[in-house]
Amino acid sequence: MKRERLIYLPLGGAGEIGMNAYVYGWGAPGKERLILVDMGVTFPDMDNAPGVEVIMPDITWLEERVSRLEAIFITHAHEDHIGALGHLWPKLKARVYARKFTSAIGRLKLEELGLPGDAITTVAARPEVVEAGPFRVQFVPLSHSIPESAALIIDTPGGRIVHSGDFKLDRDPVVGEAWDDALWQQIAEEAPVKALMCDSTNVFSTHPGRSESTLAGPLAELIGRAQGMFVATTFGSNVARLRTLAEAAAAAGRTVCVMGRSMKRMLAVAQETGVMTAFPRTVSPEEALEIPRASLMLLVTGSQGERRAAAAALSRGKYLGHEMKAGDTFLFSSRTIPGNEKEVFRIWNALSAIGVRVVDDEGGLYHVSGHANRPDLEHVHRLLLPDMLIPMHGEHRHLSEHVRIATEAGIAAQVAVNGMMVDLTGEVPAVVEYVDTGRLYLDGSVLIGALDGVIRNRIRMALNGHVLATVILDESDEPMGEPWIELMGLTPLGRGGRDLAETMENELAEWMNRATRKVLKDDGRIEDDIRRIVRQVAVEEIGKKPEVTVVVSRLVAE
Amino acid sequence: MKRERLIYLPLGGAGEIGMNAYVYGWGAPGKERLILVDMGVTFPDMDNAPGVEVIMPDITWLEERVSRLEAIFITHAHEDHIGALGHLWPKLKARVYARKFTSAIGRLKLEELGLPGDAITTVAARPEVVEAGPFRVQFVPLSHSIPESAALIIDTPGGRIVHSGDFKLDRDPVVGEAWDDALWQQIAEEAPVKALMCDSTNVFSTHPGRSESTLAGPLAELIGRAQGMFVATTFGSNVARLRTLAEAAAAAGRTVCVMGRSMKRMLAVAQETGVMTAFPRTVSPEEALEIPRASLMLLVTGSQGERRAAAAALSRGKYLGHEMKAGDTFLFSSRTIPGNEKEVFRIWNALSAIGVRVVDDEGGLYHVSGHANRPDLEHVHRLLLPDMLIPMHGEHRHLSEHVRIATEAGIAAQVAVNGMMVDLTGEVPAVVEYVDTGRLYLDGSVLIGALDGVIRNRIRMALNGHVLATVILDESDEPMGEPWIELMGLTPLGRGGRDLAETMENELAEWMNRATRKVLKDDGRIEDDIRRIVRQVAVEEIGKKPEVTVVVSRLVAE
Repeated sequence: MKRERLIYLPLGGAGEIGMNAYVYGWGAPGKERLILVDMGVTFPDMDNAPGVEVIMPDITWLEERVSRLEAIFITHAHEDHIGALGHLWPKLKARVYARKFTSAIGRLKLEELGLPGDAITTVAARPEVVEAGPFRVQFVPLSHSIPESAALIIDTPGGRIVHSGDFKLDRDPVVGEAWDDALWQQIAEEAPVKALMCDSTNVFSTHPGRSESTLAGPLAELIGRAQGMFVATTFGSNVARLRTLAEAAAAAGRTVCVMGRSMKRMLAVAQETGVMTAFPRTVSPEEALEIPRASLMLLVTGSQGERRAAAAALSRGKYLGHEMKAGDTFLFSSRTIPGNEKEVFRIWNALSAIGVRVVDDEGGLYHVSGHANRPDLEHVHRLLLPDMLIPMHGEHRHLSEHVRIATEAGIAAQVAVNGMMVDLTGEVPAVVEYVDTGRLYLDGSVLIGALDGVIRNRIRMALNGHVLATVILDESDEPMGEPWIELMGLTPLGRGGRDLAETMENELAEWMNRATRKVLKDDGRIEDDIRRIVRQVAVEEIGKKPEVTVVVSRLVAE
Repeated sequence: MKRERLIYLPLGGAGEIGMNAYVYGWGAPGKERLILVDMGVTFPDMDNAPGVEVIMPDITWLEERVSRLEAIFITHAHEDHIGALGHLWPKLKARVYARKFTSAIGRLKLEELGLPGDAITTVAARPEVVEAGPFRVQFVPLSHSIPESAALIIDTPGGRIVHSGDFKLDRDPVVGEAWDDALWQQIAEEAPVKALMCDSTNVFSTHPGRSESTLAGPLAELIGRAQGMFVATTFGSNVARLRTLAEAAAAAGRTVCVMGRSMKRMLAVAQETGVMTAFPRTVSPEEALEIPRASLMLLVTGSQGERRAAAAALSRGKYLGHEMKAGDTFLFSSRTIPGNEKEVFRIWNALSAIGVRVVDDEGGLYHVSGHANRPDLEHVHRLLLPDMLIPMHGEHRHLSEHVRIATEAGIAAQVAVNGMMVDLTGEVPAVVEYVDTGRLYLDGSVLIGALDGVIRNRIRMALNGHVLATVILDESDEPMGEPWIELMGLTPLGRGGRDLAETMENELAEWMNRATRKVLKDDGRIEDDIRRIVRQVAVEEIGKKPEVTVVVSRLVAE
């Protein structure tokens, strides 16, 4: 038997920010026992995946080896770590482990899809240990921007791995456990850290990260000074921020009303699970209508400009009976994720047109990041002194920058993007295999592969328009009537105001008159010829090359 | 006759950044003689206008009053100010005035579309005056990020207007004329400024703007230190930047090669028109292949991540024989315009994967903006002391912030977005009319209205997919064969792996069997029923509500 080895294989989240899914394995090559860490989603956009609900990693590799899968661990309840649980768990059906708050969110996700919530086992923080085949796993609390985020300590026969999850060095995180240098020192002393898999999101931020608690003062001042109604948006899962905002509102004599399903759910779960005990009294949107505007604060979803969320709805007019007016204040207590600028500015502009004062994070005064910045990462490298470092949770540029700083600190570091299997057994990380990975789209209620061509065709229709051509032939291959054209997403008029469909039909009728029996017998030839003629006319008349669907109907005498 | 008045009417560029087009008028209400300043485009994206080439203002209002149009003035040769010239000029056919460099670019644009280049008259800078009906217009040179940008002084019987165009306060702009306080003081003293129409792009930038010349040192140092090939991208029209980059390259012993049509055109025009005299020697891409990589600098287009431009091509592999390698450097000497982040990061990540060192503007070290920041705007307000200020060139949030700071300085300021006609005759600006405005899309070679429904249908196909259903009936309304389904942009398999098209066909066949003669006589009823059934099946099988096109063919005996 071959020597046993310790492997790491990202299936999602490495080379991108989103849809995290990382596999670890121990055993003889090809026979490793496996665990999966996180099952996240990423969000589609019109450029890449129009009409798609969410995107998740293609876990075919793992499905094919599911008999070797010991367990699934979820580090925290952000969508990019837990969002695919309901969609992908049925393919794996392994036991899922998570801390209490994360479990509660995960159970809701499973149950919504008719799956058994008790597939998730709630685990206490270290020193509790989950035994999963050759792996001994502990959840170590750390601070992030959601309650109960955790790093994993994964002890294996090949050594100790620290999987950082998403984290920041917050010594006063408002809700949840503070970062604790002594704890991490102890972890590193207990057993040397063979490999650190480390969050890379903020590797380009060169200043030390700031604590969630630094926001309380500026927010209290801003809210205290405000006239009229005050509306604030932030990420619904940032329960600590919600509490800071709500406490500042209460201190200013304002009553708090929470709007938006995801935010209400997070707050409810945080209170039910006991991760957050104190929170100012809130009222329902209906009750809020009875409260004078200047004594009210709305906490709303939609900080990224999501069109269906409360923030966008309020920018368009009345929402649940509430309406913003000149002199009110709207606060983005959030950062705009790259790619969402247009949507966020759409809200800002609409509110500006009403006369609302819009305040954004103002360079950190009203928002702090949930991820460790470069100096914080370097601090963690020094604390843990890992033999190896594999950056994760980043685009390629983040991963390679993280490798650069680790290498400079004398750590053997390696960029590993989705599909790169890394052998951690030796002194340095070694890429040993490239595994096919990809993306699955949840489209409506169906999972489709990113490369199935379905979405590619939608993008093509959006760019080029769609022409439908129908011809009918009888049993002796004689045309019955003339070809018929329907346009979708194309201007009806070509050059000089000529009817585009008619011009196409005329050209097709001429072609049909000339077509030989041999051509008319052959559906493939007919389709090719019609497509070519339709495109020629379109290029001449409107300068576009549309998608063309040809329907050849052959009527058989009955 | 009613009292004559001085009016201002933005048709594009106010309430958005892009497609600038501003009308001024003097005369009796409804009989004003008019001029148009700028004819710009804006760029589409997949969210709003998939497949569209460029977007321009709908100038129907002006077309309907074209007999009153005296002239068109173009402030500078950026696409958002001149890009629509070739497309919209045929609707107006008025004489166009611009400075030499702008004229040259404009002529190329007209001639490319088979229009007469001599429609443009080249005008020298102030003191030359263009007389256009009641308007006396002077071009005043100022610094921006393209040669020969100009403000317009528009003297009217109702007073002096200053139309700022795009500008910054650059006292050492490398190419072109420096900002000159004394000149502007003189302009304000010569005749009091009734109204200032002012660039608002950078009103949220609270630090004073920096000069183009400050980049020379940092760029020379960066390029001097670099190993391997050096590739830099910036806006092709920023001729000053190109010169600074090329000079830094030459000083470091590197030969310069320019790649990308738009950049080459701008450089050529700058040299032909004499606005830029000195520029280091350049070589063609073929000649550059003979030069050692470490002695080469490529200047490339595509700083916004445009997929077809040189930067993106180089990030994907070989381009014109050149290929980036580990150890090379790639510089974004540019700012990423909000909305383009994903495309820019795609290039960065691809280069990072090759091992190229990617450098961005690093907070201003390698790029400065071409627009005046807030303190610069305030300086200009104080210099010109206008009675009124109407902010332009900004989204609503920029315009209203600009109004706020002007109002605080005691200037009568007014937000006027596209379509708001402002009467400037009195003491304060007064909105007197709302004019229908909108957007025109150049789609292929055809201009279509934004509200024509063509693009809306494309977006719907992209989001929902497209189903084609065909049925054939004979002359006595009897179905011939069964209904036929084609899918485009939809998964072929529904729940449990059932064939989606087949399921739809079966349902439609059943419906057809049950359908009464009355229904089958009525194309509208057939289409409605088929659409409803197709959507029902789709919702059940795949959870989507597709677009449906129904083709009912009725065969007539011949």
